[in-house]
Amino acid sequence: MDDTDGQNAMMPEDGPELRKLYADFRDMNIMPLWTQLADLMPRHPQPQAVPYLWRWAELYPLAQRSGELVPVGRGGERRALGLGNPGLGGNPYISPTLWCAIQYLGPRETAPEHRHSQNAFRFVVEGEGVWTVVNGDPVRMSRGDLLLTPGWHFHGHHNDTDQPMAWIDGLDIPFSHHNDVGFFEFGSDRVTDYATPRYSRGERLWAHPGLRPLSGLRNSVSSPLGAYRWEYTDRALTEQLLLEEEGVPATVEQGHAAVRYVNPTTGGDIMPTIRAEFHRLREGVETPTRREVGATVFQVFQGRGRVVMAGEDHRLDQGDIFVIPSWVPWSLQAETMFDLFRFSDAPIVERLNFDRVQVDGGEG
Amino acid sequence: MDDTDGQNAMMPEDGPELRKLYADFRDMNIMPLWTQLADLMPRHPQPQAVPYLWRWAELYPLAQRSGELVPVGRGGERRALGLGNPGLGGNPYISPTLWCAIQYLGPRETAPEHRHSQNAFRFVVEGEGVWTVVNGDPVRMSRGDLLLTPGWHFHGHHNDTDQPMAWIDGLDIPFSHHNDVGFFEFGSDRVTDYATPRYSRGERLWAHPGLRPLSGLRNSVSSPLGAYRWEYTDRALTEQLLLEEEGVPATVEQGHAAVRYVNPTTGGDIMPTIRAEFHRLREGVETPTRREVGATVFQVFQGRGRVVMAGEDHRLDQGDIFVIPSWVPWSLQAETMFDLFRFSDAPIVERLNFDRVQVDGGEG
Amino acid sequence: MDDTDGQNAMMPEDGPELRKLYADFRDMNIMPLWTQLADLMPRHPQPQAVPYLWRWAELYPLAQRSGELVPVGRGGERRALGLGNPGLGGNPYISPTLWCAIQYLGPRETAPEHRHSQNAFRFVVEGEGVWTVVNGDPVRMSRGDLLLTPGWHFHGHHNDTDQPMAWIDGLDIPFSHHNDVGFFEFGSDRVTDYATPRYSRGERLWAHPGLRPLSGLRNSVSSPLGAYRWEYTDRALTEQLLLEEEGVPATVEQGHAAVRYVNPTTGGDIMPTIRAEFHRLREGVETPTRREVGATVFQVFQGRGRVVMAGEDHRLDQGDIFVIPSWVPWSLQAETMFDLFRFSDAPIVERLNFDRVQVDGGEG
Amino acid sequence: MDDTDGQNAMMPEDGPELRKLYADFRDMNIMPLWTQLADLMPRHPQPQAVPYLWRWAELYPLAQRSGELVPVGRGGERRALGLGNPGLGGNPYISPTLWCAIQYLGPRETAPEHRHSQNAFRFVVEGEGVWTVVNGDPVRMSRGDLLLTPGWHFHGHHNDTDQPMAWIDGLDIPFSHHNDVGFFEFGSDRVTDYATPRYSRGERLWAHPGLRPLSGLRNSVSSPLGAYRWEYTDRALTEQLLLEEEGVPATVEQGHAAVRYVNPTTGGDIMPTIRAEFHRLREGVETPTRREVGATVFQVFQGRGRVVMAGEDHRLDQGDIFVIPSWVPWSLQAETMFDLFRFSDAPIVERLNFDRVQVDGGEG
Repeated sequence: MDDTDGQNAMMPEDGPELRKLYADFRDMNIMPLWTQLADLMPRHPQPQAVPYLWRWAELYPLAQRSGELVPVGRGGERRALGLGNPGLGGNPYISPTLWCAIQYLGPRETAPEHRHSQNAFRFVVEGEGVWTVVNGDPVRMSRGDLLLTPGWHFHGHHNDTDQPMAWIDGLDIPFSHHNDVGFFEFGSDRVTDYATPRYSRGERLWAHPGLRPLSGLRNSVSSPLGAYRWEYTDRALTEQLLLEEEGVPATVEQGHAAVRYVNPTTGGDIMPTIRAEFHRLREGVETPTRREVGATVFQVFQGRGRVVMAGEDHRLDQGDIFVIPSWVPWSLQAETMFDLFRFSDAPIVERLNFDRVQVDGGEG
Repeated sequence: MDDTDGQNAMMPEDGPELRKLYADFRDMNIMPLWTQLADLMPRHPQPQAVPYLWRWAELYPLAQRSGELVPVGRGGERRALGLGNPGLGGNPYISPTLWCAIQYLGPRETAPEHRHSQNAFRFVVEGEGVWTVVNGDPVRMSRGDLLLTPGWHFHGHHNDTDQPMAWIDGLDIPFSHHNDVGFFEFGSDRVTDYATPRYSRGERLWAHPGLRPLSGLRNSVSSPLGAYRWEYTDRALTEQLLLEEEGVPATVEQGHAAVRYVNPTTGGDIMPTIRAEFHRLREGVETPTRREVGATVFQVFQGRGRVVMAGEDHRLDQGDIFVIPSWVPWSLQAETMFDLFRFSDAPIVERLNFDRVQVDGGEG
Repeated sequence: MDDTDGQNAMMPEDGPELRKLYADFRDMNIMPLWTQLADLMPRHPQPQAVPYLWRWAELYPLAQRSGELVPVGRGGERRALGLGNPGLGGNPYISPTLWCAIQYLGPRETAPEHRHSQNAFRFVVEGEGVWTVVNGDPVRMSRGDLLLTPGWHFHGHHNDTDQPMAWIDGLDIPFSHHNDVGFFEFGSDRVTDYATPRYSRGERLWAHPGLRPLSGLRNSVSSPLGAYRWEYTDRALTEQLLLEEEGVPATVEQGHAAVRYVNPTTGGDIMPTIRAEFHRLREGVETPTRREVGATVFQVFQGRGRVVMAGEDHRLDQGDIFVIPSWVPWSLQAETMFDLFRFSDAPIVERLNFDRVQVDGGEG
Repeated sequence: MDDTDGQNAMMPEDGPELRKLYADFRDMNIMPLWTQLADLMPRHPQPQAVPYLWRWAELYPLAQRSGELVPVGRGGERRALGLGNPGLGGNPYISPTLWCAIQYLGPRETAPEHRHSQNAFRFVVEGEGVWTVVNGDPVRMSRGDLLLTPGWHFHGHHNDTDQPMAWIDGLDIPFSHHNDVGFFEFGSDRVTDYATPRYSRGERLWAHPGLRPLSGLRNSVSSPLGAYRWEYTDRALTEQLLLEEEGVPATVEQGHAAVRYVNPTTGGDIMPTIRAEFHRLREGVETPTRREVGATVFQVFQGRGRVVMAGEDHRLDQGDIFVIPSWVPWSLQAETMFDLFRFSDAPIVERLNFDRVQVDGGEG
């Protein structure tokens, strides 16, 4: 518990016997609950992770310099710069559950193939020219796209152009590491298919609204649709705001359009551990202050605004990435039309029934 | 049982006592099982419904003549010609579960609003110009589109043009009638909104592949996407055949592309009692002979071909409608590129765990 | 619609052209909707089945006389007297979905083995001494027990005593017959195991509250627990009434205890088409008038009371069986402590999302 | 990756620029993936937790000494000795996900009420006389019983006798702590009901095999059955071994009976994060070596045997507790009839689709 409520009735009297008892505890790998309850089971989540913001204007140059100094290839596998939450003891974890990195691929470079239990996605805030090859299916990466690499799918990337490209990766590495659930396997040193099709095979089969191929009637754990294109996301958000103007309930809050990326075989989250959404605020909109169980990360896609996290106000520009740990209150403000990509560990929290939300004092 | 296996050990000896017993049965509304088992519980489904084909070239003129002679309006509600399976005793049932009709709306006519528990859809084989207004949302009806009216949604139709239009309706009327589950309520005598938008509000919210509005996170019994446009269906089928050519598994059988229309909130069938699919066969393809539990209806959308049902061969042209009762073997042959819309009672059969399939002698 | 709301705007003018149109309809197996809408799609369910009561005091002697006159054996398979709802045209259907029969097995008789898609159960209102052998597992049948024969399980019965025994059977025969979903197969002419164990293997594996064998982790469509013993049912109901006396919410209504028989692998109904429950009313209790979509059958197990169905009042004694068709209002009254077994087609209605309930004017 | 496969192609050349880059990484809370991949994403789970065994003969005296020296009451809340895995850095975590403690309550003592998001159970290896009061329902704790306190249920304990009592607690404290999902609230300083009934209200409503109260038709996240009695567990295991002797498939492996404790509303695990099972091995049985994703804990309930974990062999006696971290190979050997209680984090692993099993080299 995080406050004392006056007394602790269990404070035993110090003395040689007690000291001997505590010493025997240590010898036997025993730890008493009564000395650590307040830390172990606080009144509400007390994350070690802190709210934090990384600026794209600072991240991107670092990625560029890595591109010059660090080759990409087998062993290290990826030129990825992990965002380490300052509260998490120097680990490359943006939250206890999530990894977020900026990945950089120079002109004509290839990141070799591998697969792992960890679920992964990429989101592209700028640039184009890289294809990620997922289980042999080349997937174009362009601005505004969300690309998936669900657990145990082989994947590598290659840059087909003379320009470098950077994007963000999201994975459940910290969760997998902490809970000892991850497997890893090397694949081909090159990608297995250097084709550069406009649409991947997964999209050609699955990106048709309300239609399911008869060859794909078995539900899959993760989405079989490997690419969610900006063109559709933008259109969906545009329509929500137009419908709102016409008086039709379509937005999540006044002036706040939002979509969740889903697995078309179930209508549920794209992968078992990661939720991804896209939010658009009209100029001038301010969202109610909200706190949720679980960690969430935003990247500004376009526009300008602010975020208040735990009472602290931050200016936001394109590409900026910020993390909101569990139960930290937050609110967004849009100074222009304001677009944000969001991902979180909500599927973990919800599948294990720990979800709670509090909006402006009302608990949901 | 449909054959005797020799003897019936339960054939009691005739006599006055037995006759008295049988008379007492009748007086008490009792029917012995042993005299009717073979009919009640046959070795395999023995439908009273028969395989049957209606030709569009004959149906459409009848609909036109109805348009001249029968006004549309409150009371009769719809100018709909029900296809009555010749085996079902003069009832307007295409199968024991399904209703199928051609509906006709003259220039500038309105079919008034009502709602009912019965689930309904429309499929358009030719023409355009009618909007169906479903719970206040005007939905354009054009060639190749599938439009939904799930149970208990108010709906009416109006023709915005100077041309008549016809389409087919599919409903679960026989199922609802037989099982006594239907409710009905009259609505407005006119449709509640005469707007003629290109896209309905349901489409604007939901027809974005892999995207779900945050305002629509609660799963719905039936699809919230009221219109499935031909443009998408055609593209999905085209892609399947192209992928097949590229050596990618994408079709259901060699040369046979197919999609199921689904509820985007679940990935399952559009409505609790009706499945809808669209099939495309390459020229020259012949499907393996197949029998399934449950009744299915096809309408030829374009192209020419043949169907063999229970060993009988029928030539097929655009608009032709045929029904295959439960466990009747069937096979399709494509003489040109051949497109067929299909609907069935499969959700009933599957949700109640009665599904069985037999393909060319192999039982699945 | 079951009333006219004044006019029918679609009444076309009679004349030779209309008569010719209607004749052409008949020739082409076409039936217009506008002439039959009110019957096909009534305002609320208008069952042809009627509320009806069969008295055990009359049924049992008929069964006895059948026992004397009709041998049991291969072909007729079962000495079962089906209760035919007077509204259902002479068919042995207690409702459009359900079959209910009294089955009678004389001393030392065997009813041979077979299996069918139809789901079946037996409930024992009096007597003992018969074992039903389900997929080779002999299951004792005693007073108050519910015994299951889910679809496609082989089963036969044998009477191990010198006394006859009668019980009721419930099946989904009418549903299966109407919808053409049933398969049937003969098995052994004798039962495959004449052992007479107190508990079946299914019970020994599964009848342990809250415990699931690790060898049975795959969910099954129907309950793997083939026998629900009176001892447990009675105890559960007794506890509910005691808890109610102690002020704990435990009963469904004041003085009305009830349990549903469930599949322990899912917590859901025992079989995909049939729900079974047991109800106990304290002396003097009268249930609120209720109407539900779907047909339900009760058998009085012990005690005395009354039922009001569609306004008509019937006295009830042990063994009496009555059926309440869809949407017919009903209420029970207990003149003594009053125990009733109940079964219904609720899983069909609910899985297809047609369920509605109205209690004393409030719609649920 | 845990081996080098020869080279690491991403080893950049050392130099001032690289050192400056790495320093800038640190300043910006950035950690490169390429320097830590092998640790972050190993070939297979590489738990920091180690296989470990605590002996009851040593634990119990420690608990007794705590009983003499440490009062129980508000603030510390519970006299619980947490078993700290030696690999987990001095934290009271038996695995990264699970807490396991021996809890001790002296004669006539009360542990005050509180509630928390963390899911908890108690298992009793010896003794009796304590009641745990869960949401106001007093639940007797006796040898062999499993008692539940699902998340956010108020609970306190009191000892109604003049003898002390000890038992083990299992919770998801480490998981909740690491992932920041836990809430905590104090309740009454005394338990709210000092009654000592033989059966709790939860049992009286729910402990009837295959029967569900109609007042409890809504599925619950955790089991509504708060107590799983030894009498039933023992009987279920006894029956499995008898059935095995009769040649009926009933055990999980030859000579190895096992049950899972389940939520009767779903047939699934008792709580969203914790699985509990009971295993019985015949004398002489040795289980195949197995490795599973996720951590598991056993407590010997009765009998004698051995466990081999990661190749190391340990003798086991009544009350001994051992933990097997993720992917560590293990096998049990029974020197007498051998009964073991087991709990694990399998629901976490399975709900997030990370489950894998390998039995004697065969991967499942």
